Amino acid sequence: MDQNTIQAAVEQAYRLVLSQQYNMPDRMHVADNQNMLLLMPCFSEKFFAAKIVSVFPEAQQHGQPAVNGVMILSDNISGKPLAIMDGAAITAQRTGAVGGLGVKFLTSEAVRTAGVLGAGVQGLSQARYLLFNRKMIKILYIFDLNKEFAISMSNTLKKEYPNIEYVIVDHPNHLVENSSVIIAATTTKKPLFEATCDGIMGKTFISIGSFRPDMQEFPNTVIETADDVFVDTLFAAKESGDIAGPLKNHLITKDKIKEFAGLLEENTYLKNKTIFFKSVGMALFDLTVSSAIYQMAVENNIGQRLDF
Amino acid sequence: MDQNTIQAAVEQAYRLVLSQQYNMPDRMHVADNQNMLLLMPCFSEKFFAAKIVSVFPEAQQHGQPAVNGVMILSDNISGKPLAIMDGAAITAQRTGAVGGLGVKFLTSEAVRTAGVLGAGVQGLSQARYLLFNRKMIKILYIFDLNKEFAISMSNTLKKEYPNIEYVIVDHPNHLVENSSVIIAATTTKKPLFEATCDGIMGKTFISIGSFRPDMQEFPNTVIETADDVFVDTLFAAKESGDIAGPLKNHLITKDKIKEFAGLLEENTYLKNKTIFFKSVGMALFDLTVSSAIYQMAVENNIGQRLDF
Repeated sequence: MDQNTIQAAVEQAYRLVLSQQYNMPDRMHVADNQNMLLLMPCFSEKFFAAKIVSVFPEAQQHGQPAVNGVMILSDNISGKPLAIMDGAAITAQRTGAVGGLGVKFLTSEAVRTAGVLGAGVQGLSQARYLLFNRKMIKILYIFDLNKEFAISMSNTLKKEYPNIEYVIVDHPNHLVENSSVIIAATTTKKPLFEATCDGIMGKTFISIGSFRPDMQEFPNTVIETADDVFVDTLFAAKESGDIAGPLKNHLITKDKIKEFAGLLEENTYLKNKTIFFKSVGMALFDLTVSSAIYQMAVENNIGQRLDF
Repeated sequence: MDQNTIQAAVEQAYRLVLSQQYNMPDRMHVADNQNMLLLMPCFSEKFFAAKIVSVFPEAQQHGQPAVNGVMILSDNISGKPLAIMDGAAITAQRTGAVGGLGVKFLTSEAVRTAGVLGAGVQGLSQARYLLFNRKMIKILYIFDLNKEFAISMSNTLKKEYPNIEYVIVDHPNHLVENSSVIIAATTTKKPLFEATCDGIMGKTFISIGSFRPDMQEFPNTVIETADDVFVDTLFAAKESGDIAGPLKNHLITKDKIKEFAGLLEENTYLKNKTIFFKSVGMALFDLTVSSAIYQMAVENNIGQRLDF
């Protein structure tokens, strides 16, 4: 898929947030034993979207990915279903683009070193959108608890960006010390590294993974040291341990947390500042990205026509 | 679709209710202006199903049906999506079969007259499952506020059951007076007819339409006179004005209301009794019906393969 189109669609979602031209009910969780079903509906003027994502922790034993999803895009005037898409692919792309926009708005164009923590589907997507936005990067550090995943990710990226040096590290500390931009896409419940203020000052930290209060990717020092803290959605970010924990322990105050969408009106990014961006995602991203893909598919006659 | 298979699948849903081998979270409603989105998830041992139904009251102005739906059937062991189906078609069929099972368990095989109130998609489906279950019917009365709908429905049925006499009535009273079985599939907020106890005694009344507290298809006299009151789901039936109203006004007591599923263990139906069956539907019907259709489609290589 075209990264430009996807990232522009994510930017459009932020613009809808600014103009409040959307209706996004709370996402719904349904549990069945150890499995989870998430239902994420969203409405804009022209479209409505419903993403159904299942998380089956033990699916890999059956040769299936843990996360599956189906995305349904419909016309919000007539109610007619327009397209059905692979929800996991949409999620991977739009979440990559959310990180990519973070990089675009919150890092220097001259950044030369970066690190990605977590080399799963999402880590790869984050790396792709990072490299798409920052062409001066010379070294990309990669960490994963499973070294095979990190090797596989660097091999994939080598084909797409052969002029970059890929360094697989044994410990996140090494990655953080050497990178100007640090992106985490993991499901860790304990911060991935320990750091002193000195080790993190002037860097940009992007947390993509922690989407529940019991998950935290970065040590509290990051958010405490940060000059600016941005979140993609003010209400949902509190679901993440990276925000909920520091708020609860009074390490930061609510007013320190700003909405990422505000950057589109006035980008206040200053070099050498320490920045923390926490994304938890929202159905509005799925809506704008899937509608952009739908329109592209119609124009280029891509996809399968369904008979019903 | 094969009515035998669909009706057997609905019967299987009731058996799962009896054995409690399912997990059916409350259905979720999301409103967007005058439009509604219903999300109905359900889990059985082998499958999980999620039906997304949109109700756009003004869609007909845009040449679309008011109700659209998408049904996603997945494997409940691996989480893998198995099939995507037209949710409106599944709903029409399974709701028809719910009425059909009502007819099978709660009317005499010798019934010769019947009436259907409401000649929409659902009225037609009810008539088809009625005639599928009761072969001795000679006259079918049809009423709809829009007479054109009633004419269209009788023309459709004439092709399928040419030996039955179809009588389009101008008022529901005439239909109720002349029918032994009365099925309503409307969205009326006021009871469709007025009746004395004498006029309804010994008949079977099936209400399919009223799914909200502000909707009521039959006058209170029906439920008051009924010897037996059955509902498809004990908890959800209270959402219907046909049950909620009489309960609230103490016209009946809770203990008079029985679960339809119990009839599969012991059919207590006696001729000449007055019976009221209220169905509001449940996601478990969608699950068993869609999984039966999926299995049939796989065996017969029907349907389109999707690439994702």
